[in-house]
Amino acid sequence: MRPVPLLSAIALALGLSACATTPPETLRGTGDLGVVIERAAGRVQVVEHSHNTSLGTIDGLGDLSHAHVAFSRDGRYAYVFGRDGGLTKVDLLTRRIAKRVIQAGNSIGGSVSQDGRLVVAQNYEPGGIKAFDADTLELLADVPAEYAPGKFSRVVGLADVPGQRFVYALFDANEIRVTDFSNPRQPVTTRYPAGKQPYDGLVTPDGRYFLAGLFGEDGVSLLDLWKPEDGATKILAGYGKGEEKLPVFKMPHLRGWSMAAGQAWLPAIGRHEVLVADARSWQETGRVPVKGQPVFVMARPDGRQIWVNFAFPDNEWVQVIDTVEKRVVHTFSPGKAVLHLEFTPRGDEVWLSSRDSNRVTVIDTATFATRKELPADAPSGIFFTSRGQRIGF
Amino acid sequence: MRPVPLLSAIALALGLSACATTPPETLRGTGDLGVVIERAAGRVQVVEHSHNTSLGTIDGLGDLSHAHVAFSRDGRYAYVFGRDGGLTKVDLLTRRIAKRVIQAGNSIGGSVSQDGRLVVAQNYEPGGIKAFDADTLELLADVPAEYAPGKFSRVVGLADVPGQRFVYALFDANEIRVTDFSNPRQPVTTRYPAGKQPYDGLVTPDGRYFLAGLFGEDGVSLLDLWKPEDGATKILAGYGKGEEKLPVFKMPHLRGWSMAAGQAWLPAIGRHEVLVADARSWQETGRVPVKGQPVFVMARPDGRQIWVNFAFPDNEWVQVIDTVEKRVVHTFSPGKAVLHLEFTPRGDEVWLSSRDSNRVTVIDTATFATRKELPADAPSGIFFTSRGQRIGF
Repeated sequence: MRPVPLLSAIALALGLSACATTPPETLRGTGDLGVVIERAAGRVQVVEHSHNTSLGTIDGLGDLSHAHVAFSRDGRYAYVFGRDGGLTKVDLLTRRIAKRVIQAGNSIGGSVSQDGRLVVAQNYEPGGIKAFDADTLELLADVPAEYAPGKFSRVVGLADVPGQRFVYALFDANEIRVTDFSNPRQPVTTRYPAGKQPYDGLVTPDGRYFLAGLFGEDGVSLLDLWKPEDGATKILAGYGKGEEKLPVFKMPHLRGWSMAAGQAWLPAIGRHEVLVADARSWQETGRVPVKGQPVFVMARPDGRQIWVNFAFPDNEWVQVIDTVEKRVVHTFSPGKAVLHLEFTPRGDEVWLSSRDSNRVTVIDTATFATRKELPADAPSGIFFTSRGQRIGF
Repeated sequence: MRPVPLLSAIALALGLSACATTPPETLRGTGDLGVVIERAAGRVQVVEHSHNTSLGTIDGLGDLSHAHVAFSRDGRYAYVFGRDGGLTKVDLLTRRIAKRVIQAGNSIGGSVSQDGRLVVAQNYEPGGIKAFDADTLELLADVPAEYAPGKFSRVVGLADVPGQRFVYALFDANEIRVTDFSNPRQPVTTRYPAGKQPYDGLVTPDGRYFLAGLFGEDGVSLLDLWKPEDGATKILAGYGKGEEKLPVFKMPHLRGWSMAAGQAWLPAIGRHEVLVADARSWQETGRVPVKGQPVFVMARPDGRQIWVNFAFPDNEWVQVIDTVEKRVVHTFSPGKAVLHLEFTPRGDEVWLSSRDSNRVTVIDTATFATRKELPADAPSGIFFTSRGQRIGF
């Protein structure tokens, strides 16, 4: 008997066999990965957009209504922010939960710092932001949004900007704040008075301008983060509900505001219009009539098209605006209750979630042809890893 | 004897052991990976910018002087274009050559199509472009740059733009061409007369404008790809060597032209200046004096800074321009013969190659502190996978 060769042979055979039990898709690039939120099931699907397939699901993520997702610098991990305050770090390669903490009572999202080392959550309850180590989810800093003794505001519109800073608005305190986490355990916060009841916000793709939509008055508060000492100014005073009091079925998501062709494209509130503003002067330059009250107004990455979805009762429709012609060039319905859309990084395709049709539809943005339909359980948000390489996501 | 449990135990033990022989770093995200060209050795280093380390090397890539790199849609593969016409598909995870073909006699680079399915090389000899299947490197189409019977031009400035199109210039034929690979085996090419001897080109980040610098006359040829029927126009007629005939030590790389803060920042030819032009009117708006003849003029991803390296004899220096103040705010030397620089996707750091100091230096762009120095054998180009998610790279 020659035990060594025998064992070697067994080792070889069994070794290969054991390795094969690792899902083969774990050894793969992460640049084409993404997650689809299945809100009712507390679950995400892991998807890939090279071949438009679903790779698997991950359960146990809690209340995913209004869930938001950010990504690690390397693209391997998704940080899923649940409405119930759960923050879950999901490994997209092994499709397992890597870490999970309950960090608040009511959370509406979060972002990753410029260097990838911090995950910051924005919370309604308790009102404020919290910073976590991106590897371990250890709490590094708690920054309450206290605006009067014992009073804490709900935080909205959180966005990462260069310099380890995060900018956000305080709905209950008429303020924009910038917190610098260059020293993560000793953050420094600067306060800027803003308009009444900022209800959401975004930064321009270069991280320079923070814009907060106002609920308590018409207009938008603008803070130039390259000249923050000038403070917030009010722009687009005609923006908002305007002279008539229109019923608002769903507040638009300002994160969907888009910069394209030198213009900012904004969802009107209550009106069946998309507003166009010059991105240098911030003056309104036009309005495009659309089919319903816009919710997301998102530019294809090259800026030639703007895609719009709508509030109830028009939420089965999607419209496409040509940014040169400034008019709708395509109207269609991918399914019932279209909640979100996400472009592939270079814009050849767009993924749309139809909650009440239980599917995700992949559309060719050049021809508007349907490339694929993927089943999903009441899908809402769709998020691709390329967000991890951009400012303000 | 109970063979089954024994075998199971052996399988478990040996299986784990066998799996562990796979390098642990193969199971990882690819969003923070990159390659550094070691030009003299015909080798690339695989690096990662989360922790600023080198992961390994891959040999056997031929003549890598003036090498260019593009990336697969999923971020796993690098396509390395060698000067000798070699096109090598490198697996960044296993760090092996996946495929290699010699596709031309003299090549200066290439790009990947919007959908990720095509790799297109631009060649001097034979003059033209060729399209390959991104998976297999099978030749799908050969598009000679024939401009008169039997005469073929050198191709420069190739860039991918939306719609499976590639735009490029013909040095010997005073033309810009656009080839549409929507049907990869039956490409359709459109020709646009341009200025004299276009020697390099680039597209704006949205893929809308193609600009070709001219060697045979002062100025730049501009083609609006959203209105190509208008043809190419000449802009910046004062651009170029100008009234005095200055010695030009190295032609600048136009790929380095940058859009930032609503302006285009261009290397002057021969002069110790960076030119600034309005990105709407294409009129010159200023010039920034710098230390030498600029080669690469590259914007930090947020557009607040422009980093510049120089031709011999000033090629040990790097300068940083503040785009609001329009002046140099920092001058330093990371080493001798600085050939290239590459920003991390969100701009917290920049990597610089110093060929004659045999090192790559990682600099914090906020503080200008040196974060890391990595040894490298005569390094030239540095390329991060995030290029695969952008238009025009």
